[in-house]
Amino acid sequence: MIINVAMCQMNVVPGRPDINTETMLDMIAEAKSKKADIIIFPEMCIPGYLLGDTWEQAAFLKDCEYYGNKIIEASEDQIIIFGNVAVDWHKIGDDGRVRKYNACFIAHNEKLLGGDNFPYPFRIKTLLPNYREFDDERHFFGLRKLSEELDIKINDLIEPVYAPFKGKQIGLGCIMCEDGWTENYSIKPIEFINNKGGVHLNINISSSPFTLGKYNKRNRIFSEQARTTGTPLVYVNNTGIQNNGKTIYSFDGSSTFYNGGGEIIGHCGSPFVQSVEITKLDLTDQGKSITANKHPVKEDVEYIYQTLCHAIREFTTSIGINKVVIGISGGIDSAVTAALYARVLKSDNILLVNMPSKYNSTTTKNLAASLANKLGCLYTVLPIQHVVDETINQIEDTPAVRSIDNTELKLKISRHMAENIQARDRSARLLAAVAAAFGGVFTCNANKTELTVGYSTLYGDQAGFLAALADLWKHQVYELAIYLNKHIYQKEVIPQGIIDLVPSAELSFEHDVDKGQGDPVIYPYHDYLFRAFIEPWERVTPEDILKWYSEGVLEERIGCEPGLVNKIFSTPKEFIEDLEQWWKLFNGIGLAKRIQSPPILAVSRRAYGFDYRESQIGTYFTKHYYDLKEKLLS
Amino acid sequence: MIINVAMCQMNVVPGRPDINTETMLDMIAEAKSKKADIIIFPEMCIPGYLLGDTWEQAAFLKDCEYYGNKIIEASEDQIIIFGNVAVDWHKIGDDGRVRKYNACFIAHNEKLLGGDNFPYPFRIKTLLPNYREFDDERHFFGLRKLSEELDIKINDLIEPVYAPFKGKQIGLGCIMCEDGWTENYSIKPIEFINNKGGVHLNINISSSPFTLGKYNKRNRIFSEQARTTGTPLVYVNNTGIQNNGKTIYSFDGSSTFYNGGGEIIGHCGSPFVQSVEITKLDLTDQGKSITANKHPVKEDVEYIYQTLCHAIREFTTSIGINKVVIGISGGIDSAVTAALYARVLKSDNILLVNMPSKYNSTTTKNLAASLANKLGCLYTVLPIQHVVDETINQIEDTPAVRSIDNTELKLKISRHMAENIQARDRSARLLAAVAAAFGGVFTCNANKTELTVGYSTLYGDQAGFLAALADLWKHQVYELAIYLNKHIYQKEVIPQGIIDLVPSAELSFEHDVDKGQGDPVIYPYHDYLFRAFIEPWERVTPEDILKWYSEGVLEERIGCEPGLVNKIFSTPKEFIEDLEQWWKLFNGIGLAKRIQSPPILAVSRRAYGFDYRESQIGTYFTKHYYDLKEKLLS
Repeated sequence: MIINVAMCQMNVVPGRPDINTETMLDMIAEAKSKKADIIIFPEMCIPGYLLGDTWEQAAFLKDCEYYGNKIIEASEDQIIIFGNVAVDWHKIGDDGRVRKYNACFIAHNEKLLGGDNFPYPFRIKTLLPNYREFDDERHFFGLRKLSEELDIKINDLIEPVYAPFKGKQIGLGCIMCEDGWTENYSIKPIEFINNKGGVHLNINISSSPFTLGKYNKRNRIFSEQARTTGTPLVYVNNTGIQNNGKTIYSFDGSSTFYNGGGEIIGHCGSPFVQSVEITKLDLTDQGKSITANKHPVKEDVEYIYQTLCHAIREFTTSIGINKVVIGISGGIDSAVTAALYARVLKSDNILLVNMPSKYNSTTTKNLAASLANKLGCLYTVLPIQHVVDETINQIEDTPAVRSIDNTELKLKISRHMAENIQARDRSARLLAAVAAAFGGVFTCNANKTELTVGYSTLYGDQAGFLAALADLWKHQVYELAIYLNKHIYQKEVIPQGIIDLVPSAELSFEHDVDKGQGDPVIYPYHDYLFRAFIEPWERVTPEDILKWYSEGVLEERIGCEPGLVNKIFSTPKEFIEDLEQWWKLFNGIGLAKRIQSPPILAVSRRAYGFDYRESQIGTYFTKHYYDLKEKLLS
Repeated sequence: MIINVAMCQMNVVPGRPDINTETMLDMIAEAKSKKADIIIFPEMCIPGYLLGDTWEQAAFLKDCEYYGNKIIEASEDQIIIFGNVAVDWHKIGDDGRVRKYNACFIAHNEKLLGGDNFPYPFRIKTLLPNYREFDDERHFFGLRKLSEELDIKINDLIEPVYAPFKGKQIGLGCIMCEDGWTENYSIKPIEFINNKGGVHLNINISSSPFTLGKYNKRNRIFSEQARTTGTPLVYVNNTGIQNNGKTIYSFDGSSTFYNGGGEIIGHCGSPFVQSVEITKLDLTDQGKSITANKHPVKEDVEYIYQTLCHAIREFTTSIGINKVVIGISGGIDSAVTAALYARVLKSDNILLVNMPSKYNSTTTKNLAASLANKLGCLYTVLPIQHVVDETINQIEDTPAVRSIDNTELKLKISRHMAENIQARDRSARLLAAVAAAFGGVFTCNANKTELTVGYSTLYGDQAGFLAALADLWKHQVYELAIYLNKHIYQKEVIPQGIIDLVPSAELSFEHDVDKGQGDPVIYPYHDYLFRAFIEPWERVTPEDILKWYSEGVLEERIGCEPGLVNKIFSTPKEFIEDLEQWWKLFNGIGLAKRIQSPPILAVSRRAYGFDYRESQIGTYFTKHYYDLKEKLLS
C-alpha cells in the first residue's frame, strides 16, 4: 500500500497568520496536484513560534483560530497536518490567562481527527522546552499539566491518531518538536505511542532553529527513533527567521523522511529554502525498499555562511530595509560584514564608509578602498579628526560651576577616553546620519570575542541595526573570510592584506598595525577561554579553568592549541591575572554593553541575548576558586 | 505557649553567597540576642533569585551549598529557616543539567528537619512562576514534576515540618512565594498542609519584587489565608535590587506577621530597609490577643518615589558608581531625573549639562540653569550647533563614489534627520565623554510613553547607563515632579515653569515652547491608550480599542478622562488613523529601539525588557479588526 506524503517545509512569517495561511493554501494546492495523501506542515506554522508575549493578546489568538479553520476547510480527501495554537476559552493557564496549547491539528474532509481518544480534537505538545531561546512553559499548558489536572496517567493520553486511507484505517503517531528529543526526560512520547501498536507513520512537526552541529544530531536521533520503533518517521520543520528581540534565529527546515530501518528516503530540497516534497511510502515494508538518499556532509563554515546570508536576507526584508551603510576600517570584521551583505543586497544599495582619524595607517586606509573597489560598492571617506579634536577641546575648555559656592571643575580627557570619542564619533555622529540620508541603516560589525569582554565602544562600534557576526569568535570570522574569497566569490574580494594584518583598533599611536601592534586579546587562547564561559552545556567558571590549568589539561578541555598556555604565561601568577581580568570584564562592563547591543544572529549553541540570559550581578569567584588560587601561588 | 519569631528582612545581594551568608550570620546573632526561637530568612537568600543563567555554573551551585552549610551550622537551639538552591547531583532536570530545586531549609541544632516525611531533608517549591520577570521552570525542578516522577500524589508530598520546641513538637507549614499565590492553580499548598492538621504556624519565605499595587494585594491574600486556616502566617521577603539585565526590580520586603484571625501583629520596620523584627506569638490563641498594628495607606506616587530612590541607590552602589552626568533640557523628564538623583548622590557628584542648539528657547535654557541652581549641583553649558552644522556639511559635501562605473551619490540631510543628529550629538558625542571625564556615567531620562512609540533617538536621548523613569507614563512623571517639590524637598526645586511648560523636544523651529508647540503625543489620551497595549493582564489590541470606541466605552475601559476621545477626534477616520499610526510605531521602530535601550527600573505591573518579552515581528491587524474598521468607515 503506497501512500504519498507531502513535506511542506514552509517559510513561516512569525506573527502573521494571514500570510502564513495564504502560503499554506498555495502549498496545499501544489501537494494536491502532486497527488499527496498526507500533507504535513511544521509546528506553529499559522502564528509562528517565537512571538514573545504576543500570546497574551486574545484578539491574536482568535485570529489564529480563524485562519486555522481555513486550513481545516481546505482538507478534502487528504489528511492535512499542521501546527497552531489551540485555545481552551473555558480554562486558564497557570498565569491566570486563557489556556493555550501548542497543538497539532489533523484535518480530513473538513473535520478534525483524533478527538475520539483524546480530550480535545487536536494533539498537544507533551514536553515543553525551557532552555536557550525557548519559553514554552511561559505561554503554553503542556500535556504533563493536563494529565495532572485530569488525574489521568500521561501514558493513557498519548495515543495514535487513526485516519481513514483507501477504505482502511492507518495509525499516525503525531508528536511535536521537543517530544522527539527525549534524552533528558523520563516521558518518551514516541515510545508511548508506538508501544500501543498500530502506528504506520510517526510524524514530528517542528519549529526548530538552526544551530551549528544540530543537523547531524537531529539525523542521529530521528534515524534511531525510526529504527527502534521499526516505523517510518517524517520530520517537518520550517524555514525563515524568528526572533526574541535581541537574538535572531534562522530556521533551516532540513525536513527529512526516514524509513522503518532508520534510513533517509526523502528530504526537502535545500536547507533554508521553502519547498513541497512528496515521498512515496510503501506501508507494507515501512518504506525500506527505497534507496537511501544521502546528504552531503558540510564544513561548519559552509553552514555559517548559509545561515548568515539567509538571516540577513530575511531580516532586512522583514523590516523593509534594502540599503545599508557599513563602516569599513580596513580590518577583518568590517570586511567580512561587507562581503556578506554584498551577497544579499545589490552593490549600489551598499555604501561603505571609511572614517580615518590621525591614528589610522595608510595601510588600512588603502585596504578599505581596495575592498570597496573589489566589491563594487559605493564608497566614501569621512575623516573624524577635526570633530574629535573639537569635542575634546569643548569639554576641556568649558568648566562646570556650582553656583552655591562657585566651585569650578575642569574636566580632562585621557587617552582612553579619546579612543572612545573616536569610536562614537564614527557611529553615532556619522554612520547613523549617513544611513538616514542614504535611506537605510548601518551595520554593527562586532564579533563574539569583543562582545564577551566589552572590547568595543557603546554607541560606537557596538551600535548598528544588526550584529551579523556577533555569534562568531574571531577565528571563525577569519575562516569565513577565507571561505568567502575561495568558494563564494572565487576571487580575492577581501584583500589578502586584511586577512594577514594584525587585528587592531587603531585608536591611538600605540595601535600601530605596521609595527604589528594590535588588540590586547590573544585570540588563539582567549577565543577558546571565552567560549568555555558560555557555550558548553555545563558552563565553565574560573574555578574549573584553574583546576584544569593545575592538572595540565586546560588546552584539551577548552579546545585550543596544545602547549599554548605555557607559551603565553610564564608563571601561574600571570595566568591568574589574565583569567581574572577577563572574567571581570565578561561579567562587568561586557555585560552592561551587551544589554544595549543590537540584535544578534544566532549561529552557535549559545548566542548572547535571549538565548544566554544574563543578570548584571557583577563578578564572583567561588570559595573553592580562592582555595585553588592560594595553592597555585604558594 | 509564647514563641519568639524573628523576621529577617535581609538585603540580598544577587550572585553573592559569600556576602549574603555574612549578613545572615550577623542577623542570626542579633536574633539570638533578642531571644528568638524561630529565625526566618527570605527565599533564595543565599544565592539571590534573579540570576539569569548563572544557575548553569556547577561551581556556583557548590558554593551555595558550602555557604548554606555555614548557616545550618549556626543553628543551635533555634530553628533557622532560609531559602537556598538545593542540588541533587545524581539527577538531571528537563534540560539535562544537574537538577536544582528552589528550596526551603529548616535547621535546628546543626541538623536539617523535615526529611522524615519528604524525599529530601528540605522542602521544595511547588508552584513555579513563569510570567513577567520569572523563569522558574527554566532553572528549577518543581514539586509537580517530582510528584510525576515518583508517582506519588502531590497532596501526599505537601506535609508540615515538625520541629522541637520546649520539649514539645510544633508543626510548621513551610511554603515559598508563589505557593501562596494560588488563585490560578488547582494545587493549593497552604490548604493541603493545613488540611493535615497540627500546623501551628504557616511560613511563606519569598523573594517578591515591588510592583505598584502589589502591597495591598499581598495583605489581602495572606490575611485571608491566615483567617481561613485559622493559623498564624508569617511572610518574610527580602529587600535590595535584583535584575534580569534589561529590567531592574526593587524588593520592598514588607515582611508581615498575621495572626490566626488574619490581623497584622507585626511587620519589619520600613519597606525597602533591612531589619530583624521579633514578634511574640502566643500559640494558645493563634496570636489573636495582640493588638493589630495597622499600616499607613500610601499614595502611588509615594511608592514610586520610594522604589526609584531605593533602586537608584542600590544600582549605582552595585556597579561602583557614585558620580552621574545628567543632560538637562529645561523639560520635565530631565528635571525629575536630576531631582531624584540629588536625593541619592551628593550634589557635587552630580554634573548637569545643558546642550542648546539654535532651536532651544531662552525660556528652557533659563529653566535648566535655574534647576541646577536650586539643586546645588555642578552645571555647565555645552552648545552643539557648531558640530551639528559641521556634521551636516561634511555629509552633504562629500559624495560617495562607485569606482566600477564612477557613479557619484550626493546625500541630503532632511529636517527630521537633522533632529536626530542633534539628539545623538548631545548624548553620544558630549554626555558620554563628559561622563567619562567626570569619572561617572550619564543617565537616560526617557519615560514609558516615549519608549512605547520610539519618540526618542537611539544613541541620543535614549542612551545612558540607566533609565530610571522608563516605567512611568508622562502623567506619572508630572505627578512625581509635584510630589518632589511639595513633600520631599518642601520647596520649588523643580521650577514651576518646567511643570507648566508644554512638553517639547525643541529640535526644530516648529517645536516652539513659547508658542505652545510641543510633542505630537496627546498625553492625556495616548498615555492611557499605550498603557492598555502593555499593562493589563489581558492585553489590549486595536481590535479591542475599536470595539470599545464603537460602543462608546473607550475612555472608561482605558481609564482616561470621559469625553476626551470625541474632543480630540472629530471622525472615526481620524480616530483610526491615529490608532494605526501609534500601533505601528509601538510594534515597529519603538520595539527596535527598546532592544538597544538601557536597563529600566520596574515600577508598574509590566515593565519593558525581560518583564514584557518582545519579538520584532512587525505590526499586525487581525481579520476582525479590518471588519470593524470597514463597518466604522462605511
